[in-house]
Amino acid sequence: MSLLVTGSIGIDTVTTPHGSADDVLGGSAIYFSFAATFFSPVRLVGVVGEDFPDAFRDVLTRREINTLGLETRTGSKTFRWTGKFVGDMNEAETVGVDLNVLAEAGPKVPAAFADSRIVFLANTHPALQRELLAQVNAPKLTVCDTMDLWIENERDELLKTLGMVDGVIINDAEARQLTGVYNLVEVGRQLLSCGPKFAVIKKGEHGAMLISADGATAIPAYPTDNVKDPTGAGDSFAGGMLGYLAESDDFSPASLKRAIVRGTICSSFTIEGFSLNRVLETTRDDINTRVAQFTRMLRID
Amino acid sequence: MSLLVTGSIGIDTVTTPHGSADDVLGGSAIYFSFAATFFSPVRLVGVVGEDFPDAFRDVLTRREINTLGLETRTGSKTFRWTGKFVGDMNEAETVGVDLNVLAEAGPKVPAAFADSRIVFLANTHPALQRELLAQVNAPKLTVCDTMDLWIENERDELLKTLGMVDGVIINDAEARQLTGVYNLVEVGRQLLSCGPKFAVIKKGEHGAMLISADGATAIPAYPTDNVKDPTGAGDSFAGGMLGYLAESDDFSPASLKRAIVRGTICSSFTIEGFSLNRVLETTRDDINTRVAQFTRMLRID
Repeated sequence: MSLLVTGSIGIDTVTTPHGSADDVLGGSAIYFSFAATFFSPVRLVGVVGEDFPDAFRDVLTRREINTLGLETRTGSKTFRWTGKFVGDMNEAETVGVDLNVLAEAGPKVPAAFADSRIVFLANTHPALQRELLAQVNAPKLTVCDTMDLWIENERDELLKTLGMVDGVIINDAEARQLTGVYNLVEVGRQLLSCGPKFAVIKKGEHGAMLISADGATAIPAYPTDNVKDPTGAGDSFAGGMLGYLAESDDFSPASLKRAIVRGTICSSFTIEGFSLNRVLETTRDDINTRVAQFTRMLRID
Repeated sequence: MSLLVTGSIGIDTVTTPHGSADDVLGGSAIYFSFAATFFSPVRLVGVVGEDFPDAFRDVLTRREINTLGLETRTGSKTFRWTGKFVGDMNEAETVGVDLNVLAEAGPKVPAAFADSRIVFLANTHPALQRELLAQVNAPKLTVCDTMDLWIENERDELLKTLGMVDGVIINDAEARQLTGVYNLVEVGRQLLSCGPKFAVIKKGEHGAMLISADGATAIPAYPTDNVKDPTGAGDSFAGGMLGYLAESDDFSPASLKRAIVRGTICSSFTIEGFSLNRVLETTRDDINTRVAQFTRMLRID
């Protein structure tokens, strides 16, 4: 089942207590795509500048990522993010952002992608999320993410977007900010009242919670002390989750739960290295092995 | 298998956003005992003052709690705690503490309890924990809890106690304070290096992590929006866990995991009411039903 992602593609510079990586491939759509392609091909929609390195394009060819929707805009520069994680590495501290091409007009969904069945709208302006969504004909499953900036400044636009998607994947702090309540079961219920049929609340090192008409399901994170760089963990989670749903073509509550486990495991690999370093050396077998181990961990006999 | 608990028995006054309860039965050994007796009889060792209400003694008779080790000290007053939970109710704010009888000599383990096979040393001065432990002949399983006060002021005494127990059940903030590291897998490993064969790190609304020679196991909390009063959640968790181990007489890794699930469910009932109100109207069937539901939630098919 075809899976389309729209989101940022960037050049990151990241420092953590374990080292740093300068001018590496990053962005929400990138982390999503590399996780999703463990399970399903991905159609990538995003825009970069003329300065986007050829080496990064080469990396994209190492997976089943269709780059027909990757626009290289003449005269523009690629989005850049510089951040650091300190101490417990629980939150990224943004040192600098150059929106560059992301401050211009959004990308277009190529006509060949209009038949996509699953669409993930990674974080961007909620009006642009809807504009992109409108370019897909009859998606079977649509899911979005968002961020504090839009919750604060574009609340009405964001609520309109939430009213049009089947699911939302959002982190706990932002979900609490949006709904104004603390308890995550109640947060999830309020998210559903905005339109989505399911909400997945990401809790970082504490895992994730799924809320749907069936109730609340809590899944812990994969326990590890091997965390080099948390950049992209949330987008890898979403990528693994939707990649699995694209592969399985089953959106039942049991399948959503299996998908969350895949997302959890994908992000557990992402954080073991800087940028995509660890993900690029990970195989589907590695994923399967860790999924099986995690599933056993959660099995109460 | 006989289960003994030593810890505080108190008169609590608690305020939460959902109301308040004045002069109600509380204390670590109490919450532990009421949870544990869903699974196994409990031998209670603790000390109260002359003012300990008869009504509270009556409550104790409603469960299989052997009060032979409950000393009522003439001329002394019962421990009192006044606290409040505000906002997200994630942390208790102590408004007032009257140690009273807890500032005097500790209780004694009755000779009839010296053959206890499982011993839980709820939080108290670590030297007193060892003194109590020395009064039990050949326990098969010994587990302790502790608190920030002893970590800060009686570190060496605490390390001696940790060197003598089979397991430790401790909350995340205190475990991090004790070990000086943040990552909970690493925290757990450092706890094991102090002596215990297993460590259970309680994470409140985020569940618990078990660390043993077998590795790390993360179990989420029972997802609920029905939280009236979190007082006693951690002690109910320990009570449910050790009560189950006493019932099963099996301390294998798989049994420890099942025990953590029972602890999780016991505390999920405790927090649904003030003091023991909700626990007192809970049946073993209620526990079993919620355990089955939680086990299904964690089952990834």
